[in-house]
Amino acid sequence: MNTFGTLFRVTTFGESHGPALGAVVDGCPAGVALDPAHVQAALDRRRPGQSALTTPRKEPDQVEVLSGVYEGKTLGTPIAMLVRNVDARSQDYQTLRTEDRPGHADFTWRTRFGHRDPRGGGRTSARETVSRVMAAAVAEAFLARELPEVRTVAWVAKVGALECGAPEASLTRAQVDVHPTRCPDPKVSVAMAEAITKARDAGDSLGGAVDVRITGLPVGLGEPVFGKLKATLSAALTSIPAVAGVIIGAGDLELNGSQFHADPRSWGGIQGGLSNGQPLELRVLFKPPSTLREHALNGRHDPCVLPRAVPIVEAMVSLTLADARLSMLAHPHRP
Amino acid sequence: MNTFGTLFRVTTFGESHGPALGAVVDGCPAGVALDPAHVQAALDRRRPGQSALTTPRKEPDQVEVLSGVYEGKTLGTPIAMLVRNVDARSQDYQTLRTEDRPGHADFTWRTRFGHRDPRGGGRTSARETVSRVMAAAVAEAFLARELPEVRTVAWVAKVGALECGAPEASLTRAQVDVHPTRCPDPKVSVAMAEAITKARDAGDSLGGAVDVRITGLPVGLGEPVFGKLKATLSAALTSIPAVAGVIIGAGDLELNGSQFHADPRSWGGIQGGLSNGQPLELRVLFKPPSTLREHALNGRHDPCVLPRAVPIVEAMVSLTLADARLSMLAHPHRP
Amino acid sequence: MNTFGTLFRVTTFGESHGPALGAVVDGCPAGVALDPAHVQAALDRRRPGQSALTTPRKEPDQVEVLSGVYEGKTLGTPIAMLVRNVDARSQDYQTLRTEDRPGHADFTWRTRFGHRDPRGGGRTSARETVSRVMAAAVAEAFLARELPEVRTVAWVAKVGALECGAPEASLTRAQVDVHPTRCPDPKVSVAMAEAITKARDAGDSLGGAVDVRITGLPVGLGEPVFGKLKATLSAALTSIPAVAGVIIGAGDLELNGSQFHADPRSWGGIQGGLSNGQPLELRVLFKPPSTLREHALNGRHDPCVLPRAVPIVEAMVSLTLADARLSMLAHPHRP
Amino acid sequence: MNTFGTLFRVTTFGESHGPALGAVVDGCPAGVALDPAHVQAALDRRRPGQSALTTPRKEPDQVEVLSGVYEGKTLGTPIAMLVRNVDARSQDYQTLRTEDRPGHADFTWRTRFGHRDPRGGGRTSARETVSRVMAAAVAEAFLARELPEVRTVAWVAKVGALECGAPEASLTRAQVDVHPTRCPDPKVSVAMAEAITKARDAGDSLGGAVDVRITGLPVGLGEPVFGKLKATLSAALTSIPAVAGVIIGAGDLELNGSQFHADPRSWGGIQGGLSNGQPLELRVLFKPPSTLREHALNGRHDPCVLPRAVPIVEAMVSLTLADARLSMLAHPHRP
Repeated sequence: MNTFGTLFRVTTFGESHGPALGAVVDGCPAGVALDPAHVQAALDRRRPGQSALTTPRKEPDQVEVLSGVYEGKTLGTPIAMLVRNVDARSQDYQTLRTEDRPGHADFTWRTRFGHRDPRGGGRTSARETVSRVMAAAVAEAFLARELPEVRTVAWVAKVGALECGAPEASLTRAQVDVHPTRCPDPKVSVAMAEAITKARDAGDSLGGAVDVRITGLPVGLGEPVFGKLKATLSAALTSIPAVAGVIIGAGDLELNGSQFHADPRSWGGIQGGLSNGQPLELRVLFKPPSTLREHALNGRHDPCVLPRAVPIVEAMVSLTLADARLSMLAHPHRP
Repeated sequence: MNTFGTLFRVTTFGESHGPALGAVVDGCPAGVALDPAHVQAALDRRRPGQSALTTPRKEPDQVEVLSGVYEGKTLGTPIAMLVRNVDARSQDYQTLRTEDRPGHADFTWRTRFGHRDPRGGGRTSARETVSRVMAAAVAEAFLARELPEVRTVAWVAKVGALECGAPEASLTRAQVDVHPTRCPDPKVSVAMAEAITKARDAGDSLGGAVDVRITGLPVGLGEPVFGKLKATLSAALTSIPAVAGVIIGAGDLELNGSQFHADPRSWGGIQGGLSNGQPLELRVLFKPPSTLREHALNGRHDPCVLPRAVPIVEAMVSLTLADARLSMLAHPHRP
Repeated sequence: MNTFGTLFRVTTFGESHGPALGAVVDGCPAGVALDPAHVQAALDRRRPGQSALTTPRKEPDQVEVLSGVYEGKTLGTPIAMLVRNVDARSQDYQTLRTEDRPGHADFTWRTRFGHRDPRGGGRTSARETVSRVMAAAVAEAFLARELPEVRTVAWVAKVGALECGAPEASLTRAQVDVHPTRCPDPKVSVAMAEAITKARDAGDSLGGAVDVRITGLPVGLGEPVFGKLKATLSAALTSIPAVAGVIIGAGDLELNGSQFHADPRSWGGIQGGLSNGQPLELRVLFKPPSTLREHALNGRHDPCVLPRAVPIVEAMVSLTLADARLSMLAHPHRP
Repeated sequence: MNTFGTLFRVTTFGESHGPALGAVVDGCPAGVALDPAHVQAALDRRRPGQSALTTPRKEPDQVEVLSGVYEGKTLGTPIAMLVRNVDARSQDYQTLRTEDRPGHADFTWRTRFGHRDPRGGGRTSARETVSRVMAAAVAEAFLARELPEVRTVAWVAKVGALECGAPEASLTRAQVDVHPTRCPDPKVSVAMAEAITKARDAGDSLGGAVDVRITGLPVGLGEPVFGKLKATLSAALTSIPAVAGVIIGAGDLELNGSQFHADPRSWGGIQGGLSNGQPLELRVLFKPPSTLREHALNGRHDPCVLPRAVPIVEAMVSLTLADARLSMLAHPHRP
């Protein structure tokens, strides 16, 4: 339930307003170069409070590596990482003890678990993704050794009805991060920022889409028939809070097959469930957050999660690829 | 890899042109009434050759139950079911021994597994879904005992650019099956049938969307944080051949949050990853099949998989719900 | 529950008196040479009715390979194998419909599953091990390619209080099979045969021990900390019906450490949970069967399961080693 | 690998001489009363340095609960627990950087993982069991709610060749803990203590056996055919460092079946792989530690691990029972 992956396994823990959040990565091979500064850098990219567009909650999110790494290399043992919660104003949420927030998980969790954490979203809060980002930093260290050609770059492609075109093939994460919206088209980015500000001022919110492009994949990642790469990526991405869907490939599904298949981007880099060595593009759909104004005032939620979702989308892709790579290694054919 | 589910587990086997296809269902509780005739009826709904719109391959698809059932009730032991392949003209595919079909999985499988099954699609063929449909008949027998209110009804909502509106809340599977296209809107159905026929005659193909509506769900199905119901449903559905994406909820994601959340259909019946007791709607996107005319002549593929995909979509939903139900039982809270 | 292994996964099915028994092996890499005749030979070694010492039930146990193999090589897809039950005299067991057999699983299964299979032992019968033996034949084909030095040889070391000494290091399966008791010491074997015959005539039964020796292991098989090789072997062997314990290593545990560790046979070929390249010896303890005379008359059970247990012990070892090998491949360190 | 259990899942982390040891318990239902003081009390029972018979390493082993518990009750979310290492004199082990210790895991780990942790045993050290004891305290809190009749009591039954008889049925953990050896027979306990002291003075070590008795079990715990209770208990117990075997039941396996089955203690409380409601007895065999005098001087190891193994044996039993209980809940039969 709180573990992701079959061979590269991540177990996450921590409530939004509890003492700490953490991740234990089990299955990362030994000898992978892992610098805690890279984990910290990944957390910094995810951290709230970086621009006026996101939640004002302030968390330093300083990682502590508790196990599994020695002298800059993984030991092959579980890698446990911890981030303390600091700015956990649970008093903001005291009214939740008696009242379900509309559009939130309060009701479903209360029914299922016989309680709901009155200190805030608990495990349904987007703060849970801190654990995913830490774990993905380990996955990316592993991929850097194992599949050094792989690049995963995500960007905000859509906010409300505003949409940008396909960016250059050479787009990097650094180029995306230049924009407060993480939309790489400067004009569309400005329009998105205005729309988000306007929604916040109106106590409203906006959804949209994050697109992600994966290049440098080997041929053959994925497992037939239930572990197809498109299925594991979809599960990984849909497990992110607020995600409302995943579309594989950049093709226009209204086209006839002859036209559709003439464009390699349509195929999504996957055939028969396995990567085919071509770039893989996915679109991740986000719904607008449900937090209404009165709750936003105390609960400090984002009017639009898209800009902060970019590193989380990349994280889930990297975790999926690391797991698929180990699975491929486990079932070799020998010439 | 070929096993679906955590507690209600289905292991499938069989190549498209091998001796047989099968499924082993492990984890179905004892004492569930299971009539092999219901399994057969489910297979009959999936079977090709039922209308001019689908592949001409003729398979009787007669199920044999090998274990796990005694005097009409499940024993709590694994339920193994078998269907023999009859019309497996593997000679049609002899040219495949030396040649990769464009747009097919031939290349990725050959690279990954050191061979590709020269007898046809092997495990990448849609024929593999026979196993899913058999297993889902068991899942539906279990759900009929365990969650008797649950109804899962899917239909063809889109073929190419042709789309029908939302059907009545009372729509049944039988009403869907009346239409050769399995689109419940009579006018749109006729237009879709014409489009499919035209595509076939042109050696071309069409994609589209199957919509599925699940009603009667209890509150609380799903497991935080990686086993959210939206994530397990997405993985299940995306594992179907030709599926290019899944969208949860019927809401317009371009709307502001205040408008979006005003409509319960937007939420998709899921909050915080758990079912909330409301109807759940999903859209499953299919790409147009890649088989070109020269291969279609011998390989006998569908110009449009949508009509036949309807029972397969329902099957994957039922398998997911059965597994989620067992997981919910496994972690009770006690008042 | 009915699946063994993490990466080399075996799902078994079939009731003792149902239509068939089977196994699905998922995770065996592609390209492994697999001859159905080897599977059949493994079944023949296990089959009852081979000597006067074992149950008179007559089953041809002819294997049918349903999937996963093409032109003598594995495809990398699930390998399903089937054996039909022929001599299933379930009428012998009709009294079981109303009466629990003392010492049998009837009572526990009835309580847990709300029924007990009135046709005999169902899944608790030793007949279930047919599936294990078939699957292990695939595991051994994989090991023959992957770890060709590995040899697993088991023998009956003890029946009641009769015990043989350690056999030669060069002992082979064929040398063991020469003896109806599968005890390789000719004198002790004769005494064991007499004891078994005497027990049968008295409507009584005998337990004992099967010893197993594994040579040619690489260094490093096993997974810390819960997947230690000693733990996975113990679980595998203890899952065999009638097994009452497993002892790792051939050392005398009453010795002081200095003496104990002076003999490499004491260590059991495992250090820190991983194989160390030395021969590994285990003792598998069996309790005497509980079937009393009145049931033995119709139910046709063995007075002593030890001789027939030898290939089953070897089977569970081979399945464990195949799984451990895939796990080792999945987590490589790179120099 | 570092996760135990299927539904009540424990993931452990931490090296013997790293910053910390921890456990994440996932799958514990919500609403279970859990007092951190009980976790601490469990750790205190395991802690070294309590008597002259055990390793002089001094660790306060103060637990910190990081998540999953709120106002004294479990939330249904992962419960993460942490213990900092304090007395980790890794400089004691500096010679290990170049030299493998005979009888230790140094060689196997170096081969498998490309390194060995020069700071000491890493994950092969018995210190790893801190994580198991913390997790088992949660399992026992769950069992106290779910199966309040269950009692698990272990004791040292054998040291070298010294053995005590079966204790009273009413034996409690507190009565066992009175004795520095944890052997409940006062005379044998004194003799054992002398033998251990003598072995230590001689730079030698001793093995033996811990017996464990489980009472108050319901009927039906365990999962056929690979998850039989005897198999899961064996795997759990054999995963403990230094364990060399597990014997189920207290029967004399040299007896004829008629005599053997006349004594309920022989059966081990398990039939057909499922608990039968009778007391279950197991014997856990330990080999003498391999640490020789020169290493013992700096490495501070125990001459005999038996006394400290008692709470660890109980811990692994409790974890196994909690997992089996959830599995039983997950597959209900309905009358």
